[in-house]
Amino acid sequence: MSFKSLRGFRDFYPEEMAARRKVLDRIFDVVRPYGFREVDSPSLEMLELFRVKSGEEILTQTFNFMDRSKREVTLIPELTPTVARMVVEREKSLKRPIKWFSMPKMWRYEEPQYGRLREFYQLNVDIFGVPGPEADAEVLAVGIDIMLKLKLEGQFIFKLSDRRLMHGVLESMGIANKEAVFAAIDKRYKIGYSEFKDLLIKAGLDDFKVGQLLSILDSRGPLAEALPRLKQLLSLENEAIRAGCESLEKLADLMAMYRMEQYCELDPSVIRGLAYYTGTVFECYDTKGELRAIFGGGRYDKIIELFGGEPMPAVGFGMGDAVLEILMKRAGMWPEKKLTTDYFILTTSPQFMETAIFLAQALRERHFIVETDLLGRNFGNQMKYANSIGAKYVLILGEKEMAGGQVSIKNMETGEQKTEEVIKFLESATKGGQN
Amino acid sequence: MSFKSLRGFRDFYPEEMAARRKVLDRIFDVVRPYGFREVDSPSLEMLELFRVKSGEEILTQTFNFMDRSKREVTLIPELTPTVARMVVEREKSLKRPIKWFSMPKMWRYEEPQYGRLREFYQLNVDIFGVPGPEADAEVLAVGIDIMLKLKLEGQFIFKLSDRRLMHGVLESMGIANKEAVFAAIDKRYKIGYSEFKDLLIKAGLDDFKVGQLLSILDSRGPLAEALPRLKQLLSLENEAIRAGCESLEKLADLMAMYRMEQYCELDPSVIRGLAYYTGTVFECYDTKGELRAIFGGGRYDKIIELFGGEPMPAVGFGMGDAVLEILMKRAGMWPEKKLTTDYFILTTSPQFMETAIFLAQALRERHFIVETDLLGRNFGNQMKYANSIGAKYVLILGEKEMAGGQVSIKNMETGEQKTEEVIKFLESATKGGQN
Repeated sequence: MSFKSLRGFRDFYPEEMAARRKVLDRIFDVVRPYGFREVDSPSLEMLELFRVKSGEEILTQTFNFMDRSKREVTLIPELTPTVARMVVEREKSLKRPIKWFSMPKMWRYEEPQYGRLREFYQLNVDIFGVPGPEADAEVLAVGIDIMLKLKLEGQFIFKLSDRRLMHGVLESMGIANKEAVFAAIDKRYKIGYSEFKDLLIKAGLDDFKVGQLLSILDSRGPLAEALPRLKQLLSLENEAIRAGCESLEKLADLMAMYRMEQYCELDPSVIRGLAYYTGTVFECYDTKGELRAIFGGGRYDKIIELFGGEPMPAVGFGMGDAVLEILMKRAGMWPEKKLTTDYFILTTSPQFMETAIFLAQALRERHFIVETDLLGRNFGNQMKYANSIGAKYVLILGEKEMAGGQVSIKNMETGEQKTEEVIKFLESATKGGQN
Repeated sequence: MSFKSLRGFRDFYPEEMAARRKVLDRIFDVVRPYGFREVDSPSLEMLELFRVKSGEEILTQTFNFMDRSKREVTLIPELTPTVARMVVEREKSLKRPIKWFSMPKMWRYEEPQYGRLREFYQLNVDIFGVPGPEADAEVLAVGIDIMLKLKLEGQFIFKLSDRRLMHGVLESMGIANKEAVFAAIDKRYKIGYSEFKDLLIKAGLDDFKVGQLLSILDSRGPLAEALPRLKQLLSLENEAIRAGCESLEKLADLMAMYRMEQYCELDPSVIRGLAYYTGTVFECYDTKGELRAIFGGGRYDKIIELFGGEPMPAVGFGMGDAVLEILMKRAGMWPEKKLTTDYFILTTSPQFMETAIFLAQALRERHFIVETDLLGRNFGNQMKYANSIGAKYVLILGEKEMAGGQVSIKNMETGEQKTEEVIKFLESATKGGQN
């Protein structure tokens, strides 16, 4: 008999988890200084909450079931509906802007692939209540800052656009079936050119309009250059186009103030599948273009109304852990998988246990990580174990030491060893300091 | 249209989450120094994993369902089976002792009550591979240390016993149906005395044996006194009783070495419902005896075999967050629900945004929590918002200040205000320091 975890679900053993915890701490250490406040919420919600946003197709993509009280419930496949529900429930009392983050587990019933799992963690960062691009810029800055603090400079690029641009373009072309065009754009590089063109023709574009659309889609590049270039291709009489351009220009200015414009490029082909985006949209990719999006987000000003609240603007992003981990590992930036321990206390006789526990507790009070021998092992085996847990120092309590109220301190890196009175040693042992 | 969370599930808004995060950090800051290593594992597992340990009754107590591939799966109601599975999968390579902890979410399909939820967090701390009471003592010490660091001294008591004691007692009485007696002991204070006695009689005890059992059950008290007293009531010829007493004596000695014996008492009526405990058992209660157990644990040396591994001793505990929170709140020790912010940067004109962002980013690099105005509000409304997020300082960028490359720094607690050059201010602003 042998048990396994479910496919697409992960076990994290201590060494892997230690590396992971470092990365998570670094991410939270970026998000918190921006004044985003942590929230937490249920892993299980009424299925209806997700149906409202995504329709019936959500049924095939989630772990949903009927609970014992015949309620349709689901493990959350994303956080936005829950966050919207929470905002609506307290919309009267919450101070604006509402700046929230969390990094819960989520579940999707999809075929597990490279960078796609059935259970994953996703960082969500949202600002509610701010209509202007100041919020878009702050959210983008947090995303870029995370990538920089994870030492991924040169490995990533944020591609941005504004949903209103492409809406306006298709509007001024007189195309009614915009969703079909968006779907085609989404698939463009997965299918060949002729198939892509066929889809556009089917959606109502003629050869001229296809050419026009292609030159717009391909007007990507650094914000400061690409934006004026793109504007020359667009009909600024269209209100949606004008609004989109104006917002992108302000966003570009703000990103320059953050000194982060070099991590962004304009890319009018960024649409994002989800229909609920209303303005800025962005995705972060590896510069080699080999992986799925590392994160994505944008402005979705209709979401709070959708969940029954008063109109309230919103902008945010989600970042899953799976693709990020792949990128960090490829870049050699994933932390080393190893355990660290400050002190292992080696005892050569059970009668020294009392002193060992006294020492251990005194050091633990000072936040040192300390282990003692729990197995009555001999000297050599205790040393071996101390090595396996990455002990920086081994404190030796042997006959000789104990006779004089002393302890020997072995530096496991240099091999140096000295003997000191237990009390003296404790006086000098402060977190961060050497002994 | 309005959406609610499911019954027995909780939303945590920022103020509540900030308090909660403090408590969680304090708990982890106790557990890590003992050398316990964090692990993480799936929220969803094969139902079979839990059936093995708990039988068919698990079906009615969990959120289980058939997934799209017709697998019986369940949200985890406890962590032990998962941890055992992980140990078994790597039993050849894992160094002993295996000291693991984690605090995942768990789910139980039970009627929500005071201190019992359908979704909760549970800290799990386990040591695998140590047969002796050194591990039992260390695990207990971690539990006690958590309660002390949460400033609950005087509010809690650990009640301990050894499963082998009561087994031996019933064995020497010639009682075959031990489980019936254990179940009766479990219910003793919920039912009246006569009903309790009836259950014991039904289980095969006569009046004399009932009296004997009661005096044993009531031999509780401080370890050093109660243990010798209890031994006088027991037949030490019985091997299980002898082994249990010997182990408890060693455990008492060790707890004295930890200087923690005063937080423990012997209580032979602690059995713990779960049949898989094999030695030490303990529960932690509020001293007023008003709440459910805050945590419980013990030794379960057969668990690894049960999940298909080679025999390996194990001891550990679980501590849910719900009862702990109630106890801390009742003791006035739950942290204050409030947001903290180091700086709010107030701007009197959009043209000062560039300096505001520059200042904000420089301070955020130093891990300060900083917010800027995203809504173009007037002076008074920005001050109001700064108050609502608990800002310690407001940095004012007004016409006067900006003309001289200066910033005014208002201490929100004292109301004092001074004006400084921006560059000077930044030089002096280091985390923890005043300005």
